[in-house]
Amino acid sequence: MKYGRVYNFSAGPSMLPEAVLEEVQIELLNYQGSGMSVMEMSHRSKVFEDILHEAEKDLRELMNIPDNYKVLFIQGGGTLQFAMVPMNLMKNGVADYVNTGAWSKKAISEAKKFGKVNIIASSEDRNFTYIPDMTQVNVSPDADYVYICENETINGTTWQTLPDTQGKPLVSDQSSMFLSKPCDVSKYGLIWAGVQKNVGPAGLAIVIIREDLIRREDMDPKVPTYLRYDTHADNDSLYNTPNCWAIYVCGKVFKHLMRLGGLEAMHQLNLEKAAPLYAYLDRSEMFHGTVEKKDRSLMNVPFSTGDKELDAAFVKASLEVGFDNLKGHKSVGGLRASIYNAMPKEGVDALVDFLQKFEEEHLK
Amino acid sequence: MKYGRVYNFSAGPSMLPEAVLEEVQIELLNYQGSGMSVMEMSHRSKVFEDILHEAEKDLRELMNIPDNYKVLFIQGGGTLQFAMVPMNLMKNGVADYVNTGAWSKKAISEAKKFGKVNIIASSEDRNFTYIPDMTQVNVSPDADYVYICENETINGTTWQTLPDTQGKPLVSDQSSMFLSKPCDVSKYGLIWAGVQKNVGPAGLAIVIIREDLIRREDMDPKVPTYLRYDTHADNDSLYNTPNCWAIYVCGKVFKHLMRLGGLEAMHQLNLEKAAPLYAYLDRSEMFHGTVEKKDRSLMNVPFSTGDKELDAAFVKASLEVGFDNLKGHKSVGGLRASIYNAMPKEGVDALVDFLQKFEEEHLK
Repeated sequence: MKYGRVYNFSAGPSMLPEAVLEEVQIELLNYQGSGMSVMEMSHRSKVFEDILHEAEKDLRELMNIPDNYKVLFIQGGGTLQFAMVPMNLMKNGVADYVNTGAWSKKAISEAKKFGKVNIIASSEDRNFTYIPDMTQVNVSPDADYVYICENETINGTTWQTLPDTQGKPLVSDQSSMFLSKPCDVSKYGLIWAGVQKNVGPAGLAIVIIREDLIRREDMDPKVPTYLRYDTHADNDSLYNTPNCWAIYVCGKVFKHLMRLGGLEAMHQLNLEKAAPLYAYLDRSEMFHGTVEKKDRSLMNVPFSTGDKELDAAFVKASLEVGFDNLKGHKSVGGLRASIYNAMPKEGVDALVDFLQKFEEEHLK
Repeated sequence: MKYGRVYNFSAGPSMLPEAVLEEVQIELLNYQGSGMSVMEMSHRSKVFEDILHEAEKDLRELMNIPDNYKVLFIQGGGTLQFAMVPMNLMKNGVADYVNTGAWSKKAISEAKKFGKVNIIASSEDRNFTYIPDMTQVNVSPDADYVYICENETINGTTWQTLPDTQGKPLVSDQSSMFLSKPCDVSKYGLIWAGVQKNVGPAGLAIVIIREDLIRREDMDPKVPTYLRYDTHADNDSLYNTPNCWAIYVCGKVFKHLMRLGGLEAMHQLNLEKAAPLYAYLDRSEMFHGTVEKKDRSLMNVPFSTGDKELDAAFVKASLEVGFDNLKGHKSVGGLRASIYNAMPKEGVDALVDFLQKFEEEHLK
């Protein structure tokens, strides 16, 4: 790769498009004639407000976000969203959650601080290697919302079709799949995503929320100001100083995705990119994918040799040839390749070649 | 200035040292041979952990932080700290606050959500143009802490000597003066600072907290995980993905300050930098400083002609010659020059020259 860069298979923070990084580098000391770096701009200045509004406009266009949804840029990542969702959306004090892995569990455990949580479906029985069938599941009549993690980064599962929430607002954590394929926003009550996986630098979550779900007068007055969605919605994400830098870089990524043809095109690219890796895992005698085929993620591909020492030997060998972060999450072990939007197809193809070579050498 | 840069007198985000920006630019696509941008690094990788630990080590050295204090890197800015301080430190449910302006008021109003707040002193009677005399003030016997905003960004006042808290922990918002002069950390229970004024890009607060003030078992279990200081303290600021980019840039600023000779040297530079501006304001027949001399800030210098239209004419004229953000905060009006660590002395000298020229032209 150019600039001595490596193929970085990190689950997040992760690769950004080289073209975006090049633009950022050029503008670093003087953004488009403003005389200053984006890191130095008052968040109340015209030049920064233009960056913010352009980013929101482009995201709306990319995702075709309906007018009755607000787009919010909030600090604190997923950990803060795990709390903000129930603190803001629990009116009855009840919510339904689907447990598909570590990130669902974190959301569930945080929500329990603020109300009653029903686990209406789970894939824990088979180690989170699939997405539960929701056709026979009843949503709780008093639930304020139904919560899913739409792509489980650690386990590598993804929801191919959304559950029927029986009229309740669907809340989705899209962190590790945000902007990887088209998304019908009107089917959701709230979508949130930590941007550090598929979109930009860490320190920012994007929240897309249907306006009628933003509560004001009837909120518990003890909810901290920063944790109220209305604080951000009513102030255009400028109640306090936002993570200006991350918003700027995300905005550049949005433009980059538009240049590539938008989310339909990204989906096609992601399908083509993941295909040879999954095909290899299906035919390999050494490596195997760990997820049920129908529920496989296009973003996070966990796999294993089934042998801890061999997995470790592979990680070591892969590092030596310039593939970074192929070790699986400590909670599940094995191997994992995260191949987000910004991972070039050549990176995945090179990985497949290397897997094959490793297999040939070690099956001798 | 080099690169067509302007003198940016913004109250925050604000100027960063050019030498730091140059380094960041060089490393943007490939940080020191890692093959990736700092924006792309897993926060669990060795290369990023080294950045984090080095930043903390350098900050500890700069401020001479005692071993029984933890250094935390937290997202959410001041707005989140206004909530976290009372949520974590109020054991009795009582705290004493000193009201010296808009930022104290925000802290007070947020703290009231979580307990009883006593305003033990205030400078509101004279429009926050001074720091109250604390020698005759009694601290509440049941107060969990005493809170001050050590430098009021909007009003331009600063605490020259710390109040006697009569044994209670002192909590200080140092956002707009952090690292501008030596600081005896042992006199505080907790210091926090949004970094976007004097240290780095927005989206990060640094919290320095005495270990015995970090509560664990006796915390209200309903406090969101992200808002507990123990979450960050017990996980080395890596409970979740931090604002890696801001930590990286702050780390570079710490090294830059060390190269300049540390905080004693910075204080000397800041004294020398502010002196000609205050001297000019004292002798001018057109412009006057708005703060009592003894309480003047070295960082934020509010001033005015006393005439709204003339103030506006000055802002317009100053923009034309490359001085940005000299308008006062909307809540107080007038003019303000924020001259943080990274503002070169030449910038202030040039401003004084321009003020003089403007005065000569408009007093004719």
